[in-house]
Amino acid sequence: MSCPQNMLNGVAGSILENDVVDSDGKRRRIPSLSLPQRENAFLIMIQISHSIVDDLPMPWFGLDIGGTLTKLVYFEPTDTDEFIDPETERLVAKTIHNYLVSNKAYGEAGVRDVYLQLNNVNINARTGVIHFIRFPTERMPYFIQLVKSKGFAQMSSTVCATGGGAIKYSKDAEQELGIQFYKADELESLIKGIEFVAANNPDECFYYDNPLDEEKCRKFIWRWSSARCSSTDEERKDEHVKDGLQYPYVVCNIGSGVSVLVVRGKSQFERASGSSIGGGFFAGLCCMLCKCETFEEAIELAARGDNKNVDKLVRDIYGGDYDSVGLPGDTVAASFGKCCASDREKIRVEDLARSALVTTCNNIGSIALNVAISHGIDRIVFVGNFLRVNPIASRHLAHAMNFWSKGTKKALFLSHEGYFGAVGCLDKLVDVTEMRRNHRNGNGVDPVMHKDS
Amino acid sequence: MSCPQNMLNGVAGSILENDVVDSDGKRRRIPSLSLPQRENAFLIMIQISHSIVDDLPMPWFGLDIGGTLTKLVYFEPTDTDEFIDPETERLVAKTIHNYLVSNKAYGEAGVRDVYLQLNNVNINARTGVIHFIRFPTERMPYFIQLVKSKGFAQMSSTVCATGGGAIKYSKDAEQELGIQFYKADELESLIKGIEFVAANNPDECFYYDNPLDEEKCRKFIWRWSSARCSSTDEERKDEHVKDGLQYPYVVCNIGSGVSVLVVRGKSQFERASGSSIGGGFFAGLCCMLCKCETFEEAIELAARGDNKNVDKLVRDIYGGDYDSVGLPGDTVAASFGKCCASDREKIRVEDLARSALVTTCNNIGSIALNVAISHGIDRIVFVGNFLRVNPIASRHLAHAMNFWSKGTKKALFLSHEGYFGAVGCLDKLVDVTEMRRNHRNGNGVDPVMHKDS
Repeated sequence: MSCPQNMLNGVAGSILENDVVDSDGKRRRIPSLSLPQRENAFLIMIQISHSIVDDLPMPWFGLDIGGTLTKLVYFEPTDTDEFIDPETERLVAKTIHNYLVSNKAYGEAGVRDVYLQLNNVNINARTGVIHFIRFPTERMPYFIQLVKSKGFAQMSSTVCATGGGAIKYSKDAEQELGIQFYKADELESLIKGIEFVAANNPDECFYYDNPLDEEKCRKFIWRWSSARCSSTDEERKDEHVKDGLQYPYVVCNIGSGVSVLVVRGKSQFERASGSSIGGGFFAGLCCMLCKCETFEEAIELAARGDNKNVDKLVRDIYGGDYDSVGLPGDTVAASFGKCCASDREKIRVEDLARSALVTTCNNIGSIALNVAISHGIDRIVFVGNFLRVNPIASRHLAHAMNFWSKGTKKALFLSHEGYFGAVGCLDKLVDVTEMRRNHRNGNGVDPVMHKDS
Repeated sequence: MSCPQNMLNGVAGSILENDVVDSDGKRRRIPSLSLPQRENAFLIMIQISHSIVDDLPMPWFGLDIGGTLTKLVYFEPTDTDEFIDPETERLVAKTIHNYLVSNKAYGEAGVRDVYLQLNNVNINARTGVIHFIRFPTERMPYFIQLVKSKGFAQMSSTVCATGGGAIKYSKDAEQELGIQFYKADELESLIKGIEFVAANNPDECFYYDNPLDEEKCRKFIWRWSSARCSSTDEERKDEHVKDGLQYPYVVCNIGSGVSVLVVRGKSQFERASGSSIGGGFFAGLCCMLCKCETFEEAIELAARGDNKNVDKLVRDIYGGDYDSVGLPGDTVAASFGKCCASDREKIRVEDLARSALVTTCNNIGSIALNVAISHGIDRIVFVGNFLRVNPIASRHLAHAMNFWSKGTKKALFLSHEGYFGAVGCLDKLVDVTEMRRNHRNGNGVDPVMHKDS
């Protein structure tokens, strides 16, 4: 499995500068106490209340506090027979393992997405497993209390956080837990996370053929390296191509809202467009229209609905296709366009949820394609937690992309959907370590400790 | 007042080929009975059941049967002292005057927009008034019965129709009334109508400064000829610049759905984009969420609402601005994003309607601007019945255009909003007359009579 270079500070086989090799051949990490003084523009600070070590102390977490969901990734080392970690870290790892890794659900709404777990991953010269956990951001006060009650805050914990909530909740985290977040830029974390996961999981990227045909719909793995985007890719399913992402590509990140980014190279990206019609819109509409309580319920409702009872189609207006501009009769002309009709009582909540979903997907597809066209880019990757739970949202997006591009472009998807920002935060931890090492060796600027106002 | 050339077949002062000048100096129109044989690709046919005349018999109607609203324009001649019209036409004109022009409302839902009336307009060498009438398309069966009961169908009526309903309702019109529609292409009619009205009404086009500031918001007339688009245009308010549209321009037509057209010259246009998030979406959502019955009610509700109670703003997620990508804190991050929150009971129906409006306008602004940018065009004109009733939709669109273009482009509006398709149909009548005249003189192809299947 290949890794981008900055994931491999002190690559496996070499010895980290502040490691010593023990008599049994294991590496022993030696904590030192040099204080961080200054950091780069994106990173504000990290300080663990009672333990500052020069190398990267375990446990390693990445946290993305989004508008709706908080995503937490945890790196659990599996190479402990190769390393002698400090005793406190071994105890912490055990406590975390007993709580996080032994459970799939936490409190009322926390969930570990076991199927996404990434094994045998290398970060910062260590090998381990990345676990993926999420909970609603509005449960953050409860989460902070949980961390407090479990005693996690007393551990030598290093947390790098991103997402709007990393700023909003930093005060609470500091006051309640004595923890301060490294704050990483949201979009930078997203891109870092995508590149890291894509490099570590060759089956990460996929697309749909015949997305809305229940019988013919098929999902295919897509290889970045081959730059192929057709059903023949399936033949290569078992070849683990390892050379990672190809540039340029467009990323459409669908969380509560939508951001569309153009990525031209490593850490070369810009936010080219966006929309407020994303996951928050879909879930919010369904909560109001269908009286459901959660995104999951809304998606399940949508899967059983028929938007043709809710939306006015081209054929409802024209009696058939609108030939002169090439719009087929089954194109949605007006979303929710049948809701003012006198016979609207026959509309079911399932139909309303489906219409909300189709509206959202069609619009996102149009915006993402516009960005791709205006920047002359072919690869369009959709990520974000809107695509979670049920493939119906992805399939509608795939259909929308076929429709808007007249079949010339495919929507690509990444299986870790909404976790890339959190994964990108793990990567940030590595940057910090390297910065410190450079600083210790007199090569770098001093990291400075900032507090948020 | 200037007119595009094709509006002035036989310009005022000249004599139409089949007119004769009477002893009192008045022109007398002579009907002839040559049958139409063939027409162009867009026009299918016109046949009045009992009277086919070679010239354009009065009354002249244009009809745009849209997905939600039907728009009817009627040209009433005011130069009757200059012409001797056939007695039957004079009687018809009187009957229509007594019903249409003497009333402002028809049946339960028909309305004449008196404030839009265009006086002193020249069409086909005649001078008169254009009246603007609308009713919900779902009342079309009632309208057909009304036309039947008032005996209008027995008159020598010439009706050119466009919009999806021109196809959908043509059978009913034929079977019930013995009238067949000239069917004009919807987008061609729209563009023809815009160009005609813009040429005849120098105050047609306007824009807003400070659109969402209740105190500072001001509406300014915009002159096509000057190509200026700033508040200094106001100084020119009383100068009636007469040279009509300047090319190229983008038209964003917001009816039930949205079409975005690029117009590069007379009759040179293409549909560049579109969206299902338009007037039908706004009204449909409001019907479902706010239990209102009409578009008018929905707009009135929206005018009193506050979308900040419904939408998740950037500051709700980030605690302030999202500086690194330049998003101010009051930007909507997720439309309807607060609707799943536990305290959603405090959301009022007015707030929901406002959110539906803001969602619609922001999205349309983004799509229209993308088209303008990708085609390198500065002038973006918004039309369609979504902008009717209350300027709040226009003001939100103006704000959206300021936001998306970072203040570089203004949204332009036309005061006849949704009537351009119907006006364009009047223009089509002139084309038909000319075609017939050419045919009679041996210059043109034979118009052919088509019937719809």
